[in-house]
Amino acid sequence: MAQNFLQPLLSPRSVAIVGQSDDATKTAGRPLKLLRQAGYTGRVYPINPRRETVLGERAWPSLAALPEAPDHAYIVTGTEAAVGAVAECGKRGVKIATVLADGFAEAGAEGLAREARLRKIVAETGMRLVGPSSWGVIDLRSKAMLTGNPTFDEPELRAGKIFVASHSGGMIGSLFSRGSARGIAYAGFVAVGNEVDLSLGEICEATLDDPGIDSYLLFLETMRHAQALRRFALAAAARGKPILAYKLGRSAAARELAISHTGALAGEDDVADMFLAECGIARVSTLDGLIEGMPLLARVPLASYSGKRKTVGVLTTTAGGATMVVDPLAARGLIIAPPNADTLARISKAAGIAVKAARLVDLTIAGAQYDAMKGTLDAMLAAPEFDFVLAVVGASGRSNPERTVRPIIDSAGAAKPLAAFVVPEAPRALAMLAEAGVPSFRTPEACADAIAAALSRRMPRASMISIAQHGRQTPLPPPSARSRASSTRYSGGEGSGVGDAVDLTAPPPTPAFRRSRRSASASLVLRTAAEGRLCPPHRSQALAGGGLPRHLLDELEAYDVLKRLGITCASAIAIDANLTQAPTLPFPYPVAVKVLTAEIAHKTDIGGVVLGVADGAALIAAIGKIRTAVSEKSPGTRVTRVLVQQMVSGLGEALIGYRIDRDVGPTVLAAAGGVLTEIARDRALRLAPVDLATAHEMIAEVRALVPLAGYRGKPKGDLGALAQAIVALSRLAEDPSIAEAEINPLLVAENGVVAVDALVKLA
Amino acid sequence: MAQNFLQPLLSPRSVAIVGQSDDATKTAGRPLKLLRQAGYTGRVYPINPRRETVLGERAWPSLAALPEAPDHAYIVTGTEAAVGAVAECGKRGVKIATVLADGFAEAGAEGLAREARLRKIVAETGMRLVGPSSWGVIDLRSKAMLTGNPTFDEPELRAGKIFVASHSGGMIGSLFSRGSARGIAYAGFVAVGNEVDLSLGEICEATLDDPGIDSYLLFLETMRHAQALRRFALAAAARGKPILAYKLGRSAAARELAISHTGALAGEDDVADMFLAECGIARVSTLDGLIEGMPLLARVPLASYSGKRKTVGVLTTTAGGATMVVDPLAARGLIIAPPNADTLARISKAAGIAVKAARLVDLTIAGAQYDAMKGTLDAMLAAPEFDFVLAVVGASGRSNPERTVRPIIDSAGAAKPLAAFVVPEAPRALAMLAEAGVPSFRTPEACADAIAAALSRRMPRASMISIAQHGRQTPLPPPSARSRASSTRYSGGEGSGVGDAVDLTAPPPTPAFRRSRRSASASLVLRTAAEGRLCPPHRSQALAGGGLPRHLLDELEAYDVLKRLGITCASAIAIDANLTQAPTLPFPYPVAVKVLTAEIAHKTDIGGVVLGVADGAALIAAIGKIRTAVSEKSPGTRVTRVLVQQMVSGLGEALIGYRIDRDVGPTVLAAAGGVLTEIARDRALRLAPVDLATAHEMIAEVRALVPLAGYRGKPKGDLGALAQAIVALSRLAEDPSIAEAEINPLLVAENGVVAVDALVKLA
Repeated sequence: MAQNFLQPLLSPRSVAIVGQSDDATKTAGRPLKLLRQAGYTGRVYPINPRRETVLGERAWPSLAALPEAPDHAYIVTGTEAAVGAVAECGKRGVKIATVLADGFAEAGAEGLAREARLRKIVAETGMRLVGPSSWGVIDLRSKAMLTGNPTFDEPELRAGKIFVASHSGGMIGSLFSRGSARGIAYAGFVAVGNEVDLSLGEICEATLDDPGIDSYLLFLETMRHAQALRRFALAAAARGKPILAYKLGRSAAARELAISHTGALAGEDDVADMFLAECGIARVSTLDGLIEGMPLLARVPLASYSGKRKTVGVLTTTAGGATMVVDPLAARGLIIAPPNADTLARISKAAGIAVKAARLVDLTIAGAQYDAMKGTLDAMLAAPEFDFVLAVVGASGRSNPERTVRPIIDSAGAAKPLAAFVVPEAPRALAMLAEAGVPSFRTPEACADAIAAALSRRMPRASMISIAQHGRQTPLPPPSARSRASSTRYSGGEGSGVGDAVDLTAPPPTPAFRRSRRSASASLVLRTAAEGRLCPPHRSQALAGGGLPRHLLDELEAYDVLKRLGITCASAIAIDANLTQAPTLPFPYPVAVKVLTAEIAHKTDIGGVVLGVADGAALIAAIGKIRTAVSEKSPGTRVTRVLVQQMVSGLGEALIGYRIDRDVGPTVLAAAGGVLTEIARDRALRLAPVDLATAHEMIAEVRALVPLAGYRGKPKGDLGALAQAIVALSRLAEDPSIAEAEINPLLVAENGVVAVDALVKLA
Repeated sequence: MAQNFLQPLLSPRSVAIVGQSDDATKTAGRPLKLLRQAGYTGRVYPINPRRETVLGERAWPSLAALPEAPDHAYIVTGTEAAVGAVAECGKRGVKIATVLADGFAEAGAEGLAREARLRKIVAETGMRLVGPSSWGVIDLRSKAMLTGNPTFDEPELRAGKIFVASHSGGMIGSLFSRGSARGIAYAGFVAVGNEVDLSLGEICEATLDDPGIDSYLLFLETMRHAQALRRFALAAAARGKPILAYKLGRSAAARELAISHTGALAGEDDVADMFLAECGIARVSTLDGLIEGMPLLARVPLASYSGKRKTVGVLTTTAGGATMVVDPLAARGLIIAPPNADTLARISKAAGIAVKAARLVDLTIAGAQYDAMKGTLDAMLAAPEFDFVLAVVGASGRSNPERTVRPIIDSAGAAKPLAAFVVPEAPRALAMLAEAGVPSFRTPEACADAIAAALSRRMPRASMISIAQHGRQTPLPPPSARSRASSTRYSGGEGSGVGDAVDLTAPPPTPAFRRSRRSASASLVLRTAAEGRLCPPHRSQALAGGGLPRHLLDELEAYDVLKRLGITCASAIAIDANLTQAPTLPFPYPVAVKVLTAEIAHKTDIGGVVLGVADGAALIAAIGKIRTAVSEKSPGTRVTRVLVQQMVSGLGEALIGYRIDRDVGPTVLAAAGGVLTEIARDRALRLAPVDLATAHEMIAEVRALVPLAGYRGKPKGDLGALAQAIVALSRLAEDPSIAEAEINPLLVAENGVVAVDALVKLA
């Protein structure tokens, strides 16, 4: 597959420029100029039916007139003409076409129709397509300069080993020019545009065998085609080729821009963040961090998660300047540690002064000497307490870099990674560092950003790589012994069918999901977060953004699903809402009474829940209350059945959820539930399924779950059982028929956890 | 006062360099070199007893030997010699001395003793002192180059109108060199070091009348001497001289560094953040934002708070590049708005294309023409819907700035502020913009940072200015009629002494605080957050960091304080803990029973609280339970009295607190209470006292209080009463005898609020 398009994409033997203009100052005039200027040695066919020549070369009237089918055609015409040109390319046997024009998915129905035409051509001819809305494809080794971006109009184009892929066309030029000014060289660039055929991930994956490419910079606007990105990233991790990414869309406003700009829907940013982390992609949040970060990333080994936070040793001649980097580093969870006693002794000897035992190894003016700096650096690079060493140089870095910057270069060969930040404006020092390939930064923010991104990057979980290679995991296990055992602790009464949900109004549920019944109520389009306030926020966490109508199970059916996964649920039965006398319950009072229907996701909102019902009379009264409330607040909802559930209690509550995200696929979520989960975005996400260690990581990430780990001497919640429940729920990834599931709350007790409300939607 | 030191500080007629070395490559050799190189025209006295000449000039053996008392002496000797030199300066009648040496407050007891000696000299002689640990004082107009910082070793030193004051010595050089490279010029620099005498605020305040200084850049490491900074800032705001600040210490690690580096304790960062905002100081969090932000800040008028979020219109030729700025702007609360229909029509006409109605005015390639860019910019600058316009230029900004950057310069004269960001590396464009004085930025992060800082800056509250000018406010009013009225809503029973706290075991409390009694128990040093886990986090919010032993009032006394302020408290009485029969209560059951003692701040931790006590028998049982628990968990605590309090309920809870912060003075806090307040730092702070409008702002800032404003159709809490309680508590600023007060929780009901627990500490 990869072989089919890689060579014509990046090393075409022949190229056509469809719509080449005679004016080299225009976008459509530049490709020919840039190809010639760069010294491209393949055959070039400028196509312009209205001219004999363009830029002094023969212009061809059409693709059909060419003496051969070119490997790669760059189509720089307007929108409508471009669709025609793509069709011609397909007919003529062109291997790959790249389309500059916009006016496709981002341009409404008409644009979508144009995209459909492009897709049809690709499907019918086998030709591959980059774009539309692609500012081009550039390989600085083959000199294939298929771009109209004026930033590449440079007399000299040095080739390096970093490959750049971007959703944004403008950014390929900005990354090139900013990187070049820093002495960084690139192998090539691709602006993928609307990704109607070839996606960013697919293109990058195809280049993985190219020995001239050793690392990847990604500028992402959306998580569209995340599965291709994931395949690429997992393969890159296996080969040791690092990926550094900047992704737009931390704010809702930016995500909206992505829609109007690219036609792509943008998901929640923390989903993207999690996805990139899970794929072993380092994510920066500064532009300079992206540009300057690769030399650093390339030196930090991609390791498996150890559970240990990384430790940075900081050496400086200027405490104020160094603290500008330490501040954001510490804020991102890195430990800034003092040297241990041995290291400190070695440092003081090397520096010739008594260095203070502090988090900053501050040499002050004494550090402005080669030997002091070099000796201190070497001591820190050899010190086992540091995972990474940062050298922050003050005034002497500008006035006398041979004294304070040269030793950094001379020590950079150590096994431990090292980076430099020079606080004043210091062009000479930066040039020296860049030439030596030592990671260095222009701003404290980019420095901290890149260090944090590199040190927090980790090898993708073995299970992800295994799924990528071998498909799905082993089948679902039966409910675990542990879950069964723990469930009894919630019983609170003798003889109750603990963990059993029984529907007294219907035949026993069949083992499979009753999809036929669900499709009967399929007319209900569930309210998602995008549709507004009717969706309670704690639900919108897990359930937002589906886009498709999904079919709800009722609560009793939802418990069936959970119990199949081995998750303990509070004992519950369904009873007829028309009963005038309470039945004998298989568990003791008090109970909760809830309207039981698959038509309503948010029972509380319509008065469909009564808690703390003490006896049979109160049960009948509660049913009446629910019927009245629901008929008032949701007149369309028929109350035929109610769920009666044993009241249980715990030390605290958690929310756990599962969702097939439109972009990144199956995900699992842990949170504490409640309004703060939404307002503070206090939630942990992973790609599903997860293992027990990952589930424990997730629990530790949720700030609001911290009290359950034992807070101010209070009893500890059973976080082991919570982790097991997360693992269990995440295994829904093996069942594509379930789109979403949420337990909110899952009560966490000293021993065990129990679900007291659940929501499951079928795909 | 200011006149005394300003002229010798910045425009000395004569200077002495005490310890001037003959080696101009050394720190102690540079001042003479730099003074001569810059062309300083005053008299210069190099002092070096071991040499006849230094750098070819006559060296004087001592200050005593000089023919006159120099205006300003820069002492560049080692630590011990420096203290002696300061003493000599004082004797000789030097007006101001600046000390380079370190080894003072940051160097332990010995250093503190040295500082004391310096203070004594200043007090006895009237000489003023900059430092110690000062990298110097530089005035680029008078050419007084009193610094050893090699970054100022430049052949040309252009003078501008920005004055730079820094806690860090190294940073003055870095700001100078980085700013110079961007075409920015400065009036002068002062590195204030340890601020043993002259503080940063005092020095800046003294320069406010200097017409050659129009704005201030501050690099802050601590909030030490915040009151001087406040005086300066309020006066600067009144004169329209903007202040832009970078402050280290967002992370705890950085705050710890500040201690080891400067000897100063650093408070919580959100206190500093609040303080700077209250003083009308714009705070940036990027170094480039500090350097590049002033031209922008100077154009954004300092306005009073309107309650309206500011709106930014964004014009671009490259959506991806523009979104890099929009993303952090939106994350900082600014609105990125689309043009209205009128503006859009004007834009489309000017640009010659149908511009899409979106948050980004994206001209795409059509924008790479002067007329299109200029016309669009002018339409946006005239559009009433935008407070600010940002132009983000893509590839053409590098390749053809006359087309896309020139129009920005030509439109920058409009009344509405405008800034530019050029996405690719674009030295020509940046030089053009800098020369024209148009705010422009090198990174999207600095651009967003500076815009957000400038647009969120506001005029200090009138009450702050009034207090600064006229001292304290009017005396405390009696409890407001409203508070009295609302309190009755909590009574829940007839005849109860609502809002009254009565001590049945003691004579009625005297109107004044019983300080004599408190000092009797003064041996109790309260546990602060710094001391560890015994301090409950919700308390550590308001009460941490005092440092001094403070005297606790018991809960009943605390209610007295609150009621004097007009805050409604749940009805409560004190009873003897040895009673064997329950007294008749002046309010109905159920009640809460709590140990009543001024020795314990955290009653719950020692089992000192029983809630939901239903009747007299249960009351006696509860007292017994408390006595047993307390004797086990806190054997030193005598339980002689308990507080019996009517149980009340509300829709939700708030925490409000008052504290005299060591640095910034009286502060008031609003939060929701509970663990999330601590973990998510979800709290609003202001300098106390506050007015009602400010209290409402505070409530709106606390995310966890959002539900009380009416959430998913739930009843609304009485936020008006909550705001009144905040105002009332903040008026403790008028009573210096109270160090801290906290109500946690303050129950918020549909009508009114009521305190059900309180903690007050005397100063």
